[in-house]
Amino acid sequence: MAAAKLGLRCHIYSDAATSPAAEVSSGSTVGDYADLERLEAFARSVDVVTYEFENVPVATAEHLAQFKAVYPPPRALEVAQDRLVEKSFIADLGIAVAPFAAVDDGASLATAIADVGLPAILKTRRLGYDGKGQVRLRMREAASTALADIGHAPAILEGQVAFEREVSVILVRGLADDGANEIVEATYDIPVNTHRDGILDRSVVPSPLSPADRDEAVAIAGKIARALDYIGVLAVELFHVPTADGDHLVVNEIAPRVHNSGHWTMDACTVDQFENHIRAVVGWPLGSTSRHSDAEMLNLIGRDINNLHEHLKDGSAALHIYGKNEARDGRKMGHVNQLLPKTA
Amino acid sequence: MAAAKLGLRCHIYSDAATSPAAEVSSGSTVGDYADLERLEAFARSVDVVTYEFENVPVATAEHLAQFKAVYPPPRALEVAQDRLVEKSFIADLGIAVAPFAAVDDGASLATAIADVGLPAILKTRRLGYDGKGQVRLRMREAASTALADIGHAPAILEGQVAFEREVSVILVRGLADDGANEIVEATYDIPVNTHRDGILDRSVVPSPLSPADRDEAVAIAGKIARALDYIGVLAVELFHVPTADGDHLVVNEIAPRVHNSGHWTMDACTVDQFENHIRAVVGWPLGSTSRHSDAEMLNLIGRDINNLHEHLKDGSAALHIYGKNEARDGRKMGHVNQLLPKTA
Repeated sequence: MAAAKLGLRCHIYSDAATSPAAEVSSGSTVGDYADLERLEAFARSVDVVTYEFENVPVATAEHLAQFKAVYPPPRALEVAQDRLVEKSFIADLGIAVAPFAAVDDGASLATAIADVGLPAILKTRRLGYDGKGQVRLRMREAASTALADIGHAPAILEGQVAFEREVSVILVRGLADDGANEIVEATYDIPVNTHRDGILDRSVVPSPLSPADRDEAVAIAGKIARALDYIGVLAVELFHVPTADGDHLVVNEIAPRVHNSGHWTMDACTVDQFENHIRAVVGWPLGSTSRHSDAEMLNLIGRDINNLHEHLKDGSAALHIYGKNEARDGRKMGHVNQLLPKTA
Repeated sequence: MAAAKLGLRCHIYSDAATSPAAEVSSGSTVGDYADLERLEAFARSVDVVTYEFENVPVATAEHLAQFKAVYPPPRALEVAQDRLVEKSFIADLGIAVAPFAAVDDGASLATAIADVGLPAILKTRRLGYDGKGQVRLRMREAASTALADIGHAPAILEGQVAFEREVSVILVRGLADDGANEIVEATYDIPVNTHRDGILDRSVVPSPLSPADRDEAVAIAGKIARALDYIGVLAVELFHVPTADGDHLVVNEIAPRVHNSGHWTMDACTVDQFENHIRAVVGWPLGSTSRHSDAEMLNLIGRDINNLHEHLKDGSAALHIYGKNEARDGRKMGHVNQLLPKTA
């Protein structure tokens, strides 16, 4: 819809027979992510390729990139899809992450526990999101049960970070508006994110972060984006850890796409994260990331959607319903943005 | 797109082979407005029918209304499509309109000139918009030329109103949020509209209207909406005429649809005119019409679209490009909303 608003036509490639995006796009192909011929035909039908789902196989993105530009670059998918690669990549940039160690079996888990300490979280390296593929490990004795709980998949053990809050930087990297084809970054104001049952519940701006912490968070996100030669919207989730020595910021994870914690931008900013993602991937100048209102985004998860009428009745609420067919438990069905006059 | 944002699916019926709306909708039928069978099949495929084009034939809307609810009611189309019917309808409600008289030929034009005075504007009764089908008449001697200029179509002669500014009320009428199925009205803040070559150029909020004038404008729009048993968004254009005796408001015309002078609501309001139109026609509670920012909407007409890049570079601009295939002279190709902090 952000592309259509700019007069651009979209062609959606999806492995699902129906998708909300296809319903608001002029073209649609249903195909397997491994169907190289169909992917090629798709790529040849468009000017540029982007994705809004971080588990598109890297091989799919790389195949498409033979025919048309793919933004964000497939390398970003590769890094974001594997928690071990992701954490190593970020740590190698000199950016703080939670203590972590690779886990492939019982023996490496024992070593990881010794290195990382307990309590910790055992997470599959791949395909985990919204708390799926994760198990909290409090006692050494529970190690083998934990491995079974994640199906003995390749994993990492992550030390728990005693954070005060989680925040995120929604960064967009693309062309400057000076006509010189210079690549620039811009960021939205940083929201505080709170979770319910491992799933994002609310994102609120402004956050109580100090200006220095904001600057550091933005610098961290920029460093990651530049290291990936990133084009488009990148989300970087960070833990804010105030200590006696001062505040620390620790990267939790990155997402190579528009991000749930940036959905408040749809109503509180002149140009939202979706439009800036589109502007970046088509090579148009970025739009303003400034915010005209304070905002609180509330996710509608699973049966929350049954309260739709209550939200419709609320005068200050902007609703976004995704048109998914079925309200499964834990499924993000929509969100509500509450706007308030700007305070900071 | 406003419907998709609420999780609703649209099916577009159009007599044009391609249309911007069909490109962002899940279903599309291309058919003649007189094809009763195809219209019936279309109506049976949807839950409710609305339109965004005031020249849909009344017979088409009435045919559809046999199968499904059609909002706004076909009666609103009937009134809005004929300037003589429209002016008479409004005048009969006790609301001021410009002096007018029916013109069918040279003899009735002579009578009309005697009644209305000169200068005046000769307008076709039907199918005129954006200054088309209109000719300004300054001298009695030019009467026969004027009739030829409008192709001798049935017309009205309208006296010129010495107005200081044109404003418009964007009203939405639909269900209250109290669950009692009560019908209520809400209005957006009133913009001042300026024209270029007979086509809307800019709409700006807030306007310098006094609170009393605003109240009167809103009362006029409400009276018209109620007289039409209106559901959906109705636009009422008014001339603001300050005189020594106080201010007068004179209705210029009405539009039974979302209106160009309300496009600033897309970026300056929590719920814009498109979403409130959809909420009204599907029977959902209306959303807030409040405004969080000052706004100026600038239309991009014809070749203005070639300056797209300049607008993309402007940090405070929100762009809306309609995806029309060809930039013909006088054709509305998109608009730019400039937001500023709220002052009033």
